[in-house]
Amino acid sequence: MTPKIAQFLAEQKPATPCLVVDLSCVRTQYHALHGALPSSRIHYAVKANPAPAILRELHALGSFFDIASPGEIDICLEAGIPAQKLSFGHTVKNVRSIAYAHQKGLTLYAFDCLEELEKLAEHAPGCEVFCRLGVVNTGAQWPLSRKFGTTPESAFTLLQKAHELGLKPVGLSFHVGSQQTNTEAYGDAIAQAAGIYHRLKKQGITLDFINMGGGFPTYYNSPIPSIDQFGQAITKAMNTHFPDTAPRILLEPGRYMVGSAGVVHTEVVLASRRGGGDGDPRWVYLDIGRFGGLAETEGESIRYTFQTPHDEETSGTSPCILAGPSCDSMDVLYEKNLIPLPDEIKAGDRINILATGAYVSTYCSTGFNGFPPLDEYYI
Amino acid sequence: MTPKIAQFLAEQKPATPCLVVDLSCVRTQYHALHGALPSSRIHYAVKANPAPAILRELHALGSFFDIASPGEIDICLEAGIPAQKLSFGHTVKNVRSIAYAHQKGLTLYAFDCLEELEKLAEHAPGCEVFCRLGVVNTGAQWPLSRKFGTTPESAFTLLQKAHELGLKPVGLSFHVGSQQTNTEAYGDAIAQAAGIYHRLKKQGITLDFINMGGGFPTYYNSPIPSIDQFGQAITKAMNTHFPDTAPRILLEPGRYMVGSAGVVHTEVVLASRRGGGDGDPRWVYLDIGRFGGLAETEGESIRYTFQTPHDEETSGTSPCILAGPSCDSMDVLYEKNLIPLPDEIKAGDRINILATGAYVSTYCSTGFNGFPPLDEYYI
Repeated sequence: MTPKIAQFLAEQKPATPCLVVDLSCVRTQYHALHGALPSSRIHYAVKANPAPAILRELHALGSFFDIASPGEIDICLEAGIPAQKLSFGHTVKNVRSIAYAHQKGLTLYAFDCLEELEKLAEHAPGCEVFCRLGVVNTGAQWPLSRKFGTTPESAFTLLQKAHELGLKPVGLSFHVGSQQTNTEAYGDAIAQAAGIYHRLKKQGITLDFINMGGGFPTYYNSPIPSIDQFGQAITKAMNTHFPDTAPRILLEPGRYMVGSAGVVHTEVVLASRRGGGDGDPRWVYLDIGRFGGLAETEGESIRYTFQTPHDEETSGTSPCILAGPSCDSMDVLYEKNLIPLPDEIKAGDRINILATGAYVSTYCSTGFNGFPPLDEYYI
Repeated sequence: MTPKIAQFLAEQKPATPCLVVDLSCVRTQYHALHGALPSSRIHYAVKANPAPAILRELHALGSFFDIASPGEIDICLEAGIPAQKLSFGHTVKNVRSIAYAHQKGLTLYAFDCLEELEKLAEHAPGCEVFCRLGVVNTGAQWPLSRKFGTTPESAFTLLQKAHELGLKPVGLSFHVGSQQTNTEAYGDAIAQAAGIYHRLKKQGITLDFINMGGGFPTYYNSPIPSIDQFGQAITKAMNTHFPDTAPRILLEPGRYMVGSAGVVHTEVVLASRRGGGDGDPRWVYLDIGRFGGLAETEGESIRYTFQTPHDEETSGTSPCILAGPSCDSMDVLYEKNLIPLPDEIKAGDRINILATGAYVSTYCSTGFNGFPPLDEYYI
């Protein structure tokens, strides 16, 4: 937790649950990524956290933005970002969304199948398109399913088809999986993209860029490679596969940019062994759970770090099951991977959950069990 | 789908995604349950769908209500329901919520551990309490975890302790699991509760009721027992275990009361084999998914029925993977249990998802990927 957030919590004592984001961390992350890959163009993945304060901060730094819906277009335009700096990176869009984006002035769109390409040709005629490849996500803690991306052969065919449909085929994209901790994952995907790039070039189509998506990890509680290590792996692979002129690198970081900047401040509602013996784990119920924003604990895949008021002076810790505040029995955060917490933990204690700046505020339900969405502070 | 909903959709052509609920179905369900267990008292589980129209409808029929938070207290009071008809059936409550409920006039509270009992004694002095037992959920399609409920031995001790703390021990509760299709599940739980009831009676404590929670199923796409069959199984078990005077039965139906009353109306955003061969399943992307309200498709546990405009006249059906509209790769509804849909399905088609009146509107995220919450119509 940054000193700024610690001071804010100590002085303001905000009601729980809430999310507090330190904007200076976002700046630091942007500069670090830009430093690691200086020639790349960064499109912040708005879905990770669409708070206007974050959008304005990144816009001031020169960032581009990747959006997923008309709602995200509006929020970016309202933050003063010009439409030319927005890419529509979602491969699945209804025709009204495409027409809306086209009308607002967006020029760059993703696709991964013929049907989507035809929709783009009709509702955003003449636009720039890039094709998403499906790549293996080994090493990612939040791996992506087969929901998006196509085969190299199909990408090769579709990008030529785009040209025939009057669209501008400008790039290829892939996503190595969110919270990717294996730097080599990018190399394999770049090799695949390069193969298509060179084949298309022979057909007279020269792509402008390779969009490497997001995936750069946030530190939760186990070591991750530095952003420079990712930069080196990507640069090395690009030099290998593009010995002469290389296409530009586009990046779509979301979690990397804002994850470490945020802290969820929560209160213990109940701590009890609930009829179990001394050897049984305690149940610790927080006032935020899977339906209040911590959706990424599904399957216990993302494991957060917890700070309690008793960490410095405790008679000992014991493993706890962590659960959310709702009546829903699926609203359990960690039951297989028990969390060691001080024995002193009791109802009313405030706990900080670190590195929760990304994919929390927007996952929050509208009011499950009558609980309002969590408050947010951007400082 | 009821004729009333069909007419509404045909005439109004509402924007998608939306939920349409036929209130006459809610009435039918209430009367059927009341008929199956005439001496029971029904506390509608507000969390299943807290729409004011539903609350007013059930209030007019004489229903009581079970709430989970101050937010749900407010929505009930605003609907004209007196505080005396509300039970606070959530076993995990922060002290502010308890004090708020007490101040508003709620008299009946659940608990399942000593720590919660102590909170109640301090913040709702003199209130009526019931203890939740943990019971096995075999046969439930949405089984509850170990998150709630205690052992029979602990319940016996805690209800006596309640008396010592100046509280009124009035009941025992259990929950056999949501979408429970095994009528015998209630018998086993009633036997357990009866054992504690009789032991407490010998100690001079006579409980008023046994609260059997919810769990009664909604028809999705496989046969379920009728509500009369559940009524008979419960009556038989009560007669067996309470040969003389029996405590009252309380019920907390949620899904049963509103599930079958609702239809989600959604649009196909994209339908494509996405580079796969003819033998590969098609991907059909809808404009509602796991983060837009269909959270109960997690693990593909609740399997809905889909109606398409091509059902009557189709050249054939083929198995489809169904996915939601967001960029999130976890936003897939059915990938293991493929859904057979007509080959004619294409972007722009409208699909109805049946029996979606419960646990949809409130699970909806505030705006994941920039998509607004779904519209709701109560007719």
